[in-house]
Amino acid sequence: MEPPSPRNPIITLTTDFGLQDAYVASMKGVILSLAPEVRIVDISHEIPPQSVAAGGYVLSCAFRYFPAGTIHLLVVDPGVGTSRRLLLARTESHFFLAPDNGALGLVFAMEPPREVLHLTATHYFRTDPSATFHGRDILAPVAARLARGTAPAHFGEPVTDYLLSPLAAPAPQSDGRILLQVIMADRFGNLILNLKEEEYHTLAGSAAARPFHLEISGTTISRLLRTYAESEEDGPFALFNSSGYLEIAVRNGSAASELACGAGSTATLTP
Amino acid sequence: MEPPSPRNPIITLTTDFGLQDAYVASMKGVILSLAPEVRIVDISHEIPPQSVAAGGYVLSCAFRYFPAGTIHLLVVDPGVGTSRRLLLARTESHFFLAPDNGALGLVFAMEPPREVLHLTATHYFRTDPSATFHGRDILAPVAARLARGTAPAHFGEPVTDYLLSPLAAPAPQSDGRILLQVIMADRFGNLILNLKEEEYHTLAGSAAARPFHLEISGTTISRLLRTYAESEEDGPFALFNSSGYLEIAVRNGSAASELACGAGSTATLTP
Amino acid sequence: MEPPSPRNPIITLTTDFGLQDAYVASMKGVILSLAPEVRIVDISHEIPPQSVAAGGYVLSCAFRYFPAGTIHLLVVDPGVGTSRRLLLARTESHFFLAPDNGALGLVFAMEPPREVLHLTATHYFRTDPSATFHGRDILAPVAARLARGTAPAHFGEPVTDYLLSPLAAPAPQSDGRILLQVIMADRFGNLILNLKEEEYHTLAGSAAARPFHLEISGTTISRLLRTYAESEEDGPFALFNSSGYLEIAVRNGSAASELACGAGSTATLTP
Repeated sequence: MEPPSPRNPIITLTTDFGLQDAYVASMKGVILSLAPEVRIVDISHEIPPQSVAAGGYVLSCAFRYFPAGTIHLLVVDPGVGTSRRLLLARTESHFFLAPDNGALGLVFAMEPPREVLHLTATHYFRTDPSATFHGRDILAPVAARLARGTAPAHFGEPVTDYLLSPLAAPAPQSDGRILLQVIMADRFGNLILNLKEEEYHTLAGSAAARPFHLEISGTTISRLLRTYAESEEDGPFALFNSSGYLEIAVRNGSAASELACGAGSTATLTP
Repeated sequence: MEPPSPRNPIITLTTDFGLQDAYVASMKGVILSLAPEVRIVDISHEIPPQSVAAGGYVLSCAFRYFPAGTIHLLVVDPGVGTSRRLLLARTESHFFLAPDNGALGLVFAMEPPREVLHLTATHYFRTDPSATFHGRDILAPVAARLARGTAPAHFGEPVTDYLLSPLAAPAPQSDGRILLQVIMADRFGNLILNLKEEEYHTLAGSAAARPFHLEISGTTISRLLRTYAESEEDGPFALFNSSGYLEIAVRNGSAASELACGAGSTATLTP
Repeated sequence: MEPPSPRNPIITLTTDFGLQDAYVASMKGVILSLAPEVRIVDISHEIPPQSVAAGGYVLSCAFRYFPAGTIHLLVVDPGVGTSRRLLLARTESHFFLAPDNGALGLVFAMEPPREVLHLTATHYFRTDPSATFHGRDILAPVAARLARGTAPAHFGEPVTDYLLSPLAAPAPQSDGRILLQVIMADRFGNLILNLKEEEYHTLAGSAAARPFHLEISGTTISRLLRTYAESEEDGPFALFNSSGYLEIAVRNGSAASELACGAGSTATLTP
């Protein structure tokens, strides 16, 4: 595994820490103390608390827009304080640091990992790490040292049995329908489902005039539009969002509120 | 139109995307991939969804504090996916990128535009731009290339028929009263009205002892104070805020809640 | 008082301004106009409005993770517009700019101030500062000029009578119990109390097997755990958080909601 380019190193942060407290800033202070030249970019700190799937989804939507060599730090970590491992992964173009809880599954589906290490080299951690804040005490200093050019192999041991359990995959039922799940509601109340556009075309066949039929929360959605602006009627509609996922939206409103749905809600697609 | 100074280029971002999702970070990734030396500063991503007037107001309050040559990217874009144009504007000291929806009206009232271009040079956009996310796919790469020194004229064609319809202007009524409108409620619940201090003095005349009389939501406000701290009584009062706009506040409380008002609510001023 | 190192100067911001409005960005614009090379790091802008104690708490949790010489700007300023003073303080490793309202008390308990100045040199302020926004018009330009190397002594006069009234200290009662206070609820609804781990050990004695007994809002808490993950039962429990403060948490829930408590609520500890 090659180290990232030392020019213009970028570290991104994705957490469920929120922006109210000192957690995020503490991580930034640790990084800047060790690697003053690093540029830190927030991806999101408003991941729903402990929602591993949502954290992985949001990072999977953003990481490919960053330059090759960027280090992405993902801390949605309900298992902190248990024996769950912390990982350093390298894909073709990016580095990832995250707990071993499956959060990186959606990322790896887009860019397979070339190597995954279990972080075991405790001398790269902060001295006497706290039991509750490994983002600050372990992942931040490792990210900073990686950005400064320490070779990845120094940080730990290769593993292959890391978790890949982000979301349930779209599940075909015996009657031909496909069971989907809501990953999360976004800021506009749009409901993001675990189905990407290319999977939909595979599942639904190629007929251009095929009808769209999705049921969620007792409501049937039959409009699959290309843009939000195309929606001229009231009521919910579907579209593939800018990250390629199926999304349920309501014109000038919140699908999450109108359908009383959120992360984990199920939907059935009739191809 | 001269390009911005290549030293210390700054790009500011004002959007209604919120900070929960990957939208803002994706734009930052695109910018940093093309222009690694750019400094990105968030103005706000908590503009009320699709509130063009609020987006323009917040940017108009902030842009003049940035160095000359700063590039301000404003994405509150309910028309994305329609044929609405995207604009690059230059004022005396700043650059602006925004949809052609009137959002820049308040900015232009402070610094008239010297030139406004319709972005038509698609080879500067991201390849195959999405239908729903022009902030990431068009405005971000144009901003990055502008920051790197591409001359503005390369990005499109001059236009003069851009929209200037931000807010309703203060409207004098036949009985002499003036109809005002709430632009938005700020984080403290203060209600910001579409009247600047200098307009007030013009409208209300120069008498030092003139009484203040504002009606909103069935309540009469007769105190025009200079600071929040001057308010020693309960109940709502008015003051001109640090951006020069008339604002209704409540001591240790939220005017928006107490008066049940928000963006679009009307008020009448009796000079 | 020595100036901060001119290499890699960092200015952190802690305010109750929120991220919706233009306030924070205006401060950043002022700083970057005067000191383009400064790196600005947000600590939090979601301090509960006018909560001086919470602002001081959050900054006290974060500042020590930043490099020596960092300038920390704290603006929770209910007294803006009155005659309250603005201060520049230097501790062994850091600089602080804040209103004289006691907010720096928790910081000073961790790193005693070596010198505290009252900002009186108005020629370093923005011309014609507003009555309501000293963060932008006074503290931001002073921070920028300090970062650029102006010697601290130029900004004002030494004072020793600054306020040190952050939170009530833990208060031993005549019956031996200790009265505590909630500083704030964090993003997860955890309630942070004004008792640090070392004080607890002093107060509670050294018996390893001593029972833990805390009463708050009619509920008795008898579990003092080491990590959130150790909590296998429902109901509230206590732990010392990653900043060393006693915290009340609920597994997969919000202690603030379940106990109907928040900033200022009281608790009693029976050692």
